[in-house]
This record gives sequence, C-alpha cells and structure tokens, in this order.
Amino acid sequence: MDAAVFHGERDVRIEEVPDPELEAPGDAIVRITHTAVCGSDLWFYRGEHDYPTPGRVGHEPMGVVEAVGEDVTSVRPGDRVLAPFAISCGECEFCRKGLYTSCVEEAGWAGEHDGAQGEMVRCPFADGTLVRVPDRYADDDDVLESLLPLTDVMCTGHHAAVSAGVDAGATAVVVGDGAVGLCGVLAAQRLGAERIVAVGHHEDRLAVAESFGATETVSARGEEAIDAVLDITNGGANHVLECVGAESSWDTALDVARPGGTVGYVGVPAGVEDAEFLGTAFSNNVGLEGGVAPVRAYVEDLMADVLQGTLDPSPVFTKTVDLDGVPEGYRAMDERDAIKVLVEV
Amino acid sequence: MDAAVFHGERDVRIEEVPDPELEAPGDAIVRITHTAVCGSDLWFYRGEHDYPTPGRVGHEPMGVVEAVGEDVTSVRPGDRVLAPFAISCGECEFCRKGLYTSCVEEAGWAGEHDGAQGEMVRCPFADGTLVRVPDRYADDDDVLESLLPLTDVMCTGHHAAVSAGVDAGATAVVVGDGAVGLCGVLAAQRLGAERIVAVGHHEDRLAVAESFGATETVSARGEEAIDAVLDITNGGANHVLECVGAESSWDTALDVARPGGTVGYVGVPAGVEDAEFLGTAFSNNVGLEGGVAPVRAYVEDLMADVLQGTLDPSPVFTKTVDLDGVPEGYRAMDERDAIKVLVEV
Repeated sequence: MDAAVFHGERDVRIEEVPDPELEAPGDAIVRITHTAVCGSDLWFYRGEHDYPTPGRVGHEPMGVVEAVGEDVTSVRPGDRVLAPFAISCGECEFCRKGLYTSCVEEAGWAGEHDGAQGEMVRCPFADGTLVRVPDRYADDDDVLESLLPLTDVMCTGHHAAVSAGVDAGATAVVVGDGAVGLCGVLAAQRLGAERIVAVGHHEDRLAVAESFGATETVSARGEEAIDAVLDITNGGANHVLECVGAESSWDTALDVARPGGTVGYVGVPAGVEDAEFLGTAFSNNVGLEGGVAPVRAYVEDLMADVLQGTLDPSPVFTKTVDLDGVPEGYRAMDERDAIKVLVEV
Repeated sequence: MDAAVFHGERDVRIEEVPDPELEAPGDAIVRITHTAVCGSDLWFYRGEHDYPTPGRVGHEPMGVVEAVGEDVTSVRPGDRVLAPFAISCGECEFCRKGLYTSCVEEAGWAGEHDGAQGEMVRCPFADGTLVRVPDRYADDDDVLESLLPLTDVMCTGHHAAVSAGVDAGATAVVVGDGAVGLCGVLAAQRLGAERIVAVGHHEDRLAVAESFGATETVSARGEEAIDAVLDITNGGANHVLECVGAESSWDTALDVARPGGTVGYVGVPAGVEDAEFLGTAFSNNVGLEGGVAPVRAYVEDLMADVLQGTLDPSPVFTKTVDLDGVPEGYRAMDERDAIKVLVEV
C-alpha cells in the first residue's frame, strides 16, 4: 500500500509501505477514504518540532473497516468510521471521565502507529477509538466531508469554547483564524454566544469566520488587535478562545480577557518561552483552561448536529488533493494557500 | 505619627510622617492596632520588585476608626475594623461580582496610599473596603490575632483552595510552606478535603501544616518532591494549590496535578520566565485558576468561622514586634527566622 512518509524538513513523500495487519485482539484495520493535513502537522514539517524520519504522518482518519480482531464489538467490516487524533482504550480512569487524551495507553496516530495519510491503518483499541457513522450516511460524500473535521479541528475548536465557558448569551473572542479558530467560532455560535469577535489577519479566513457566526472581525496583530478588541468589548470578554499556541497569541488572548474571565486554549504551545502572560492572568484572575482536545468525548454530540444539518465545518477545507497530492497539500498549508487540505485517498 | 518607610534594599526605617487627614467624603481614618509583615513585602525588601523610595509599607491593616467622611455609612468612630490588602470601591462591575482586586479604582495600601505599618492610615472608599469586627469581639486580643490573617494570607490561601476546586472528600496538594501555603492547608481542611499533602522544606513549618490538617507532608524540592507526591497520590491530585509563585514551584505544581485537575495559584509570579509548565498543562488538560486574592469577597465568611471558634490561622505568627520592631520583623522574615511577623502597633 501507499502512504505519506516524512523524511525531513519540508520533505513528505508518497511511498510503498507494508500493509497493516491485526496484531492484537482489540485491533481493527481501516481502509482510509478521507483524511486531512493539519496545522499541527506544520510544526514538524517546518522542522520546529522533532519527528521521526522516516515517519508515517497524518492523524485525522476516516474510512471503512476492513477487518477486526476477535475482541472488537463496536464495529464490523464494512462499517464507515472515523477516529480522533488520539487513540484511547476507552476503559481507563481518564477515558471514563472523558479525558481520552490522557488515556493510560498514551497513543496517537503516526509515531509508533500508522499515519492516517495513507491507504490503510491499524487502529489499536478499536472499541475505544473508532466512531461509527450511521449506515444511512455512510456513503454521502457531502456528509462525510462535513464529518471529517470532527477527527480534530472541529472538536478542538469546540474544546476551546467549552473550556472558555462559552454559553448562551456570552460574548466570546476567538484569537486565530486558522481552521481551529474558525471551528472555535462555529462552536461558540453553536453554544449560544451572542457576540463573537474573530481576531486574525487573513481577510479570506475572516470571511469564513463571519459565515460561521462571527459578529465582528478584527484583522490586526499585537497592540492594534488588542486595542480593537478592548474597544469592541468595552474592556475585554469573559470568554476568550486561544486557537494558535504562539507567544504573541497568548499575550493577545490574556490582554483581551476581562478580569475574572477565562481563556480556553487549544493551540499546541509552540515558542511560548516568556511567561509574561502569567502576570496578566494573575492580576486579573483570568483562568486558563483547556489543552489538547479530548475529541472522543465530543465527537458523538457534534456528529448528531452534522447529521441533522445544523453544523457544517467543511468550509475549512479550501483545497482537495488525492493521496499523491499530499506533499502539495503540505506545501499549500505551509504557504497559507489553503486553510485546510482535504485528502481523498 | 510614626510609620515604617522603605528606603532601599533591606532598609526599612521607622520615621515621623504627617498624620493622615480626611480628603474625600468616602474616607475613614483608622488608628492601626495590629498589622503584619507579608511574604510579598520581601520582594521589594530584597530588591526583586521595584518600589518607590522613600515609600510607606504594609498592607494588612487592623485598628479602630478615628474619623469618617460625611458619605461613610458602614463604620463609625470607635469601631474595630480590618481591611484587605486591596482597596475597593464596592460599587463597580468587578466589586459587585466579588472580584474586588479588579476594582476600577485599582488601589492598594502603600504606593500612593498610606502603608499599614504605621500608627494611622487614611482609608479611601471606606464603605467598600473596611470590614467591621462585631463589638463583642472588638477588644479580645486572641480573637483579633486570629482575625488579622484575614487581611491577606488566610483569604489568599482560601482563594487558592477555592480556585483549585477543593471540596468535600477531595485530595489536595499544597505547594509551599510559607504563611499562604499553611493557610491553604487550613482552607482545604475547612472545605472538606479528606487528604491534604503539604509540600515544603522547613520541618517547623510542615509541623504547623500538620496541625492545620495536612494528612501527609513532603519535605523535599524538585524531582524528589514530585516523585514523593506522585507516589502518595498514585499519579497526582485533582486539586493543587500553588502558594509560592516561583518557577520551581510552578513546575512542581503542574507535575503533581492529575490529568484533568486544576492548579489554584495565588503566589505573585516572581521569576517565572520559562513557560515550560504550559506544555504540561496543555498535555494534561490541567486548568490554571486563581490570581491575586479578592480578599474582600471572603473575609466575612471566614470571620464568622473565626468568631465561632472553628478557624484559627494565628499560628502563622511566630514572632511579635512593636512598631519600632518592624525593621527587625523584615529581617526575621527575610532570614526565615519567622513564618510571619505580627506587629502590635
């Protein structure tokens, strides 16, 4: 089978790799039909995070079950499934409380497991990891494209909104206009926020934010962005979604939080070396909640909304490639030619 | 009148200063009878934080009202009162939601106002700031000594416990064995924690922690402390109180938090330059809640417990001086000869 393999900075290739096989009774083999390139893939792609070379890549799998181990009870061959970026046993203390990303098995796609950007994956802990798409939607391409973001970015944006305490009538500020930030807008709108200020610096992405429910947009950085948001919110918002993870966005998020408010953060902290934001949080009693999104805890609720037609994050996909086009997908993401790339395997 | 005045690193002197006068209709003049030296006073004393020189010092006032402005309705001359370290108007958005430290008037003792380590202070916004001690306890020295920590450290420890989400049956870890950490233990016990692990490195202070309700103590630093706490808690606690504010204690606090748990922090961040703790918080979805304690929101509840005899933080005072002894009090705190110094003016 073919799969995308990372060989070093800005070097992703499609290569032949061994077909996966069932290795444990809880495994499933999934033939990938849809996957994506993630903003967080850019960290290793740009050489900013360590990553094994050669290494399988991709962590947003959707496909059809090919085979299951003898202990698997929740899916059967032929089922349409998707999986979060974190593999989870479903049975440990943390999985049971919904914190699937802290599963004691500590597994994710790629790394020691198969990457989702390929023709097939072995999914360990299939019962705890895979989510089945109801049969009536299993071959509806539009629905599948709308469900695919639930493997990561939609649930991650939702985690930001939930962590920030967004609820009906809230005023929320979303820092970041990448796919996660846009999904944060969508999540805030879904949770009933009355006012959503999207902060970014790409007009095309902020236009998507508006279509997702942003009531105001701010296209600026640093002090200019902060001043604009403080002006719009009359001194800051009680609910801020930090959807980038960079030092500057952390500073912005804290500076636009109203005293006593909460920053829900989901961007992988990258290059946040200065803890100055902590002084702002301290002085203003602004809570910092969030972290890596426990997608598995959210995906069924959000799937219900997608299936009934009230939630559609698919506009984050602005480019589609096939498996051979994955290297071009990385390039497009890296150069910001695309918000997010859909891969039809 | 006499008052303590800061003149530079490790240089606090008792000097004659002008008597305070009523300046606004909401002011009160309070004759100080009891005050204290705070761990946070050591930051400027050691030259680690900027501070005006010469500058009045002290932010934990208790005394008797001498005079009030014409708009003051909540206290009268002769009333026994205490005040939090933050001055608050009591009427703005933030005061009304209990976040008195974010009062739009942004005032504290010392700085542009009088310091509590002196014979008298002018208290602006007396109705929003002063808390009256019921007459029957107004001259009971034991009660007054037990109430004095409510001006800062007891309410600050309580804020750590509340922010960390401590409730009945909880397992809590308290990082820091200073006066605030010890009060954090007392607060956690008061909130019903079943298991309280106190982490410090002074045997005498950890003994106080045990008398305050710590069920286990760890006398160690860094990795050794972390390993011991992880062992005791079988992988970390859901409720961690960060009561120091140093980089090492931040790292310890995050490393002993159970995934999905919360760190309640109240130590003024000092020297936290590396944001590495953020990666731990992100990976484990550990919330960071707290900040500068809105004492005014807690003091009445805690006072009720002190007055009925179920709460007594006074053992944090291990040395007593008079006003002339304030410089010696700073020295004793600086050299850790005392946990906290009581000043009987």
